[in-house]
Amino acid sequence: MALIVQKFGGTSVGDPDRIKRVARRIADTSRAGNEVIVVVSAMGRSTDDLIALAADITPDPPAREMDMLLTAGERISMALVAMALHAEGVEAVSLTGSQAGILTDNEHGSAKITEIRGDRIRNSLDEGKVVIVAGFQGVSPDTKEVTTLGRGGSDATAVALAAAHHAEVCEIYTDVDGVFTADPRVVPTARKLDEISFDEMLELASSGAGVLMARSVEVGRRFNIPIHVRSSFHTNPGTWVKETTMEQAIVSGVAHDTSQAKVTVAGVPDTPGVAARLFEAMSGGGVNVDMIVQNVSRAGHTDISFTVPRIQAHKAGQLAEAVGAELGSGPIDLNESIAKVSLIGAGMKSESGIAARVFRALADKSINIDMISTSSIRISCVVPEADVNNAVGTLVSLFNLEEVAEEVGA
Amino acid sequence: MALIVQKFGGTSVGDPDRIKRVARRIADTSRAGNEVIVVVSAMGRSTDDLIALAADITPDPPAREMDMLLTAGERISMALVAMALHAEGVEAVSLTGSQAGILTDNEHGSAKITEIRGDRIRNSLDEGKVVIVAGFQGVSPDTKEVTTLGRGGSDATAVALAAAHHAEVCEIYTDVDGVFTADPRVVPTARKLDEISFDEMLELASSGAGVLMARSVEVGRRFNIPIHVRSSFHTNPGTWVKETTMEQAIVSGVAHDTSQAKVTVAGVPDTPGVAARLFEAMSGGGVNVDMIVQNVSRAGHTDISFTVPRIQAHKAGQLAEAVGAELGSGPIDLNESIAKVSLIGAGMKSESGIAARVFRALADKSINIDMISTSSIRISCVVPEADVNNAVGTLVSLFNLEEVAEEVGA
Repeated sequence: MALIVQKFGGTSVGDPDRIKRVARRIADTSRAGNEVIVVVSAMGRSTDDLIALAADITPDPPAREMDMLLTAGERISMALVAMALHAEGVEAVSLTGSQAGILTDNEHGSAKITEIRGDRIRNSLDEGKVVIVAGFQGVSPDTKEVTTLGRGGSDATAVALAAAHHAEVCEIYTDVDGVFTADPRVVPTARKLDEISFDEMLELASSGAGVLMARSVEVGRRFNIPIHVRSSFHTNPGTWVKETTMEQAIVSGVAHDTSQAKVTVAGVPDTPGVAARLFEAMSGGGVNVDMIVQNVSRAGHTDISFTVPRIQAHKAGQLAEAVGAELGSGPIDLNESIAKVSLIGAGMKSESGIAARVFRALADKSINIDMISTSSIRISCVVPEADVNNAVGTLVSLFNLEEVAEEVGA
Repeated sequence: MALIVQKFGGTSVGDPDRIKRVARRIADTSRAGNEVIVVVSAMGRSTDDLIALAADITPDPPAREMDMLLTAGERISMALVAMALHAEGVEAVSLTGSQAGILTDNEHGSAKITEIRGDRIRNSLDEGKVVIVAGFQGVSPDTKEVTTLGRGGSDATAVALAAAHHAEVCEIYTDVDGVFTADPRVVPTARKLDEISFDEMLELASSGAGVLMARSVEVGRRFNIPIHVRSSFHTNPGTWVKETTMEQAIVSGVAHDTSQAKVTVAGVPDTPGVAARLFEAMSGGGVNVDMIVQNVSRAGHTDISFTVPRIQAHKAGQLAEAVGAELGSGPIDLNESIAKVSLIGAGMKSESGIAARVFRALADKSINIDMISTSSIRISCVVPEADVNNAVGTLVSLFNLEEVAEEVGA
């Protein structure tokens, strides 16, 4: 008997009909002889509705109460999924994060899972029940307070439960067919990947691919739990994210991210500690810095550019102005019309010249590269936002990432 | 320093503006130097919305999952009230029934409070916080399951918390000014009562007065916690429900109930055990029987009439047919056009002739009395539903229960 964890997002449980469809799918898995743990998100836009309600009360709600509020969303969806399973003739029980033994630290709004205590889920499985668990939430054993896990929390719940209960696979159901070589909305010819390594998926997720959040991939990698990203609309296989042992393709995919802005501080004195001052200020102000590029020094001065989430651009600009004034640097430039395009592939490690091919291909399309950053399996370029689709399409075509007319095997 | 429990119903927290108004009221109470425990219901019609969602999934949801679903409602309202208090500059913390130590039996959907463990509330009060508690819910220590208390559950939560924490008063905020001598929608001249005894309030509540449920009055009486029923729209005093030591008015009020139906089983053999058979059948079928009247025996046969909730009338009729056929009794009559009118007053105990005055006054208005039942402080008559307003008005006027033009004192 295999244990399977299945996670359904908000769209999959968005209304009663969809909940019934999800229940039939779970029932099929259970009737096939598997133990099933299901993780659900809140229905459709209900989390956004709750956030809007809170905003009508106060612009600055306490994080602890915000968590109390938001956890109502999964409570509703999980109870309804359990009801739908009963209607299908399958015994089921819904558990809150706390009841499911999901212990976290006490960072309200962005808690991290610290431990999973498995008794209650194990007992319910032993009684032959499907267990439905509220995603995105847990409880802090220190404070006995309910916490939420922040963005991507439901995926993290699912993979962590799969790890703690030694599941065979964690299935993430979504509204797309799997992980693609590029965003199919931008490149319609992008190819669905049958399989991708944890490392590559991590880079894709960190570079803007929205299908799976990096934190759940990290948990999957740490505990070696295969993650199967698949469609909730049909039963075709999706993409397996797992430890790969085979030789790997040089390039797996292209991700892009249009949610960032670029800040440039010009004419910074090129002395030790300057970068530290600047990024301590950003960190102190809660600004998340992604890429950082420092140009070569000219006459004792240099330019520092970095990217931040666009919603934090204004704040980042203000902090940079303050530090710049202190250091006697030149003007601050804020560019909110950029995009980051990233090429990811485990095989890049052993293949030279990939970066050069990327830069040449973009140059041939007259796409200007503003910033560059690389890891052993990723090359990221900041380009003008207007050129992003062209850049993604160019790289997909350059590295043969399109759908092929007739696939052989799976 | 006094401890005050304040309970706000669904209408009072129906939207963000109302929640802010409630928060200002709580803040005033807190700033006046009181410790405050607040009990809230779910917002407006949200419980009905959740029930409708469940009905869209299945006609027969498991009670355990129904409780999980419905408890999301208070979770939302309590978090929002806590946020609104923070915005008012008052420290507050919201607690679920389970966190507030409200232990119940494990009857999902109609659980009874068995014990209140006070540590967490006491600690929060000691930290200077207002404590917001979800009404209507608790946790069963046997099963570790979340339970709901059923109808009137939030009032019961409030009074039970007041008892457990030795509150000075339990304030029940509502959309009317207090308890009236009769329903003001039926008798516009009905008078607000400044005070009423627990016993009278119990009879009023059991006889159809909707302002306060009997179960919360019972808890108040048992632990001698004064209940102040008052308006959430202004600060005028409402009605105090409490142990009265003064001489009491003969009649306090008139309640009516149009939610019942009458079942008559004619020609029942007048032998021992017949009534037992009939009402065992009703009980076994889950039918709640209220009044029972058995006529004098004629030729070894008798008629038995009883009232049941109108929504159970059809079922009661079927059960009566079955038992009647077995006993060889006559036809079953079902009358769904009845109303019960009840006169309540602690002073009736020591005053004779009240019943005769009631019957005479109704007869003078040509109102036919179908059934009669009495307790030491109540006289209830079943009358045709068409005559109910006339009957209530007649009794209000007969016993001087109208608003007086100029009140002296409070």
